Amino acid sequence: MKIATLGPEGTFSHEAAMKYDRKASIIFTDTIRDVFEAVSKNKADCGIAPIENSIAGTVGQTLDYLMEFGLKTKAEEILPIRHNLAGFGKINGIKIVYLHPQTYEQCEIFIKRNLPKAEVLQTSSNGKSAEMLAKSKSKEDAAIIPKIAADIYGLKILKKDVQDAKFNVTRFFVIAKSDSKKTGYDRTSIALYPQVDRPGLLYEMLGEFAKRKINLTKIESRPSKGKLGDYIFYIDFEGHKSEKHIGEALKQLEKSAFVAVLGSYQRKY
Amino acid sequence: MKIATLGPEGTFSHEAAMKYDRKASIIFTDTIRDVFEAVSKNKADCGIAPIENSIAGTVGQTLDYLMEFGLKTKAEEILPIRHNLAGFGKINGIKIVYLHPQTYEQCEIFIKRNLPKAEVLQTSSNGKSAEMLAKSKSKEDAAIIPKIAADIYGLKILKKDVQDAKFNVTRFFVIAKSDSKKTGYDRTSIALYPQVDRPGLLYEMLGEFAKRKINLTKIESRPSKGKLGDYIFYIDFEGHKSEKHIGEALKQLEKSAFVAVLGSYQRKY
Repeated sequence: MKIATLGPEGTFSHEAAMKYDRKASIIFTDTIRDVFEAVSKNKADCGIAPIENSIAGTVGQTLDYLMEFGLKTKAEEILPIRHNLAGFGKINGIKIVYLHPQTYEQCEIFIKRNLPKAEVLQTSSNGKSAEMLAKSKSKEDAAIIPKIAADIYGLKILKKDVQDAKFNVTRFFVIAKSDSKKTGYDRTSIALYPQVDRPGLLYEMLGEFAKRKINLTKIESRPSKGKLGDYIFYIDFEGHKSEKHIGEALKQLEKSAFVAVLGSYQRKY
Repeated sequence: MKIATLGPEGTFSHEAAMKYDRKASIIFTDTIRDVFEAVSKNKADCGIAPIENSIAGTVGQTLDYLMEFGLKTKAEEILPIRHNLAGFGKINGIKIVYLHPQTYEQCEIFIKRNLPKAEVLQTSSNGKSAEMLAKSKSKEDAAIIPKIAADIYGLKILKKDVQDAKFNVTRFFVIAKSDSKKTGYDRTSIALYPQVDRPGLLYEMLGEFAKRKINLTKIESRPSKGKLGDYIFYIDFEGHKSEKHIGEALKQLEKSAFVAVLGSYQRKY
């Protein structure tokens, strides 16, 4: 199987792809859009894209591209985000740290406490941080990177789990031309774009779920491309689109909103 | 007035701070957390932090830090995100482009069409892209940057508005020790953390707004730090917390959720 995902190698997206299928051959892309293009043009069987991180929130592009390319979510993967301090020398001898800005945000308290005098050199990805350190070979240099990046570049881990938040996970969508069959433990993701504008409409729409005891697991409003204040709602709920009560709810919602089913798939939590 | 915002100079955060108060002296920080720390420790009178972008979605850190530091939102600013191709030569002679990865995502179609052969060198911020180009001085180099960065580094703009989406705005929160008084055209941001777990609870809670005709302008669920599936709801609605019907709604919500008012402030849309 060919899986497209955001490169370079050694990123968390790479790790998620390996978790989904250890034997897959992986196509690394420059952007999330390219992941969708690869699947759309049959260059990959599926794609893996981050959909939300417990610290940073939802990845809006992934939602937008699902709509734009008309592709489906066929699975989800949950990956704990663990960062590691890698280097050639000792922690108290470190003078330079290579870091992706998002990784810096996630390890900020650790860095301020343990590497207060080190100069931080920001990089464009976690894979790049590992590459820079591998090239430098200096005992005074270090990088904060995922384990997969340390493995790829053969770097020694000086300290594991240096992320500040104990709970830090990223949820990924596995994108393909069609979604998955009912397993009995499923989740469905939809987009709702209201076609009428009246106060309380969201409340009414959520009533269609509440009265059928459909459990919502996520709700988010995002500005539609028109203007701020004109929102598309992205909703995840438990169950498969093929189930009768869910089909009924979707049919009711269609009376006041454009409804796009982004996919039904086995749930992992 | 001293305003803390995410640096280096030449970023959109810098531009938002200038828009909020052109005469302010600006303190540039390395991270969003540092913006909150500067306000918390009285090193700045207020801070400016991005809260959502129409393409990329909500900036979760800003919501988290509002809760963690107990600071308030006293204003919002809306900034159109416009990118510019800057360089020393002609567009068809460009061989290298300096780019922040998020800027690449936002200008991807433009780059693929107009600079298909140029090598993309990713940088850690838009300000950094401008700095790299200013240092290189080569006619073969270019950068895609905000106007403010071109101004600061004295760079020539070869083409304006190269972002792919016509509608691309970022909303910023102005953070301070207290929020704002009622103006009659206000918005209030709150966080709701349900203390009971029953299906339909979100529906019931939204009913408190619907029955008082309080117009919601944004809703988002984010995983609380405990686990995936355990959510905090962030809600924006029209009106000021000092208004009677809003006070009543908040009081009802407190029966089933922990309610934090993040601030009431004049709305800009």
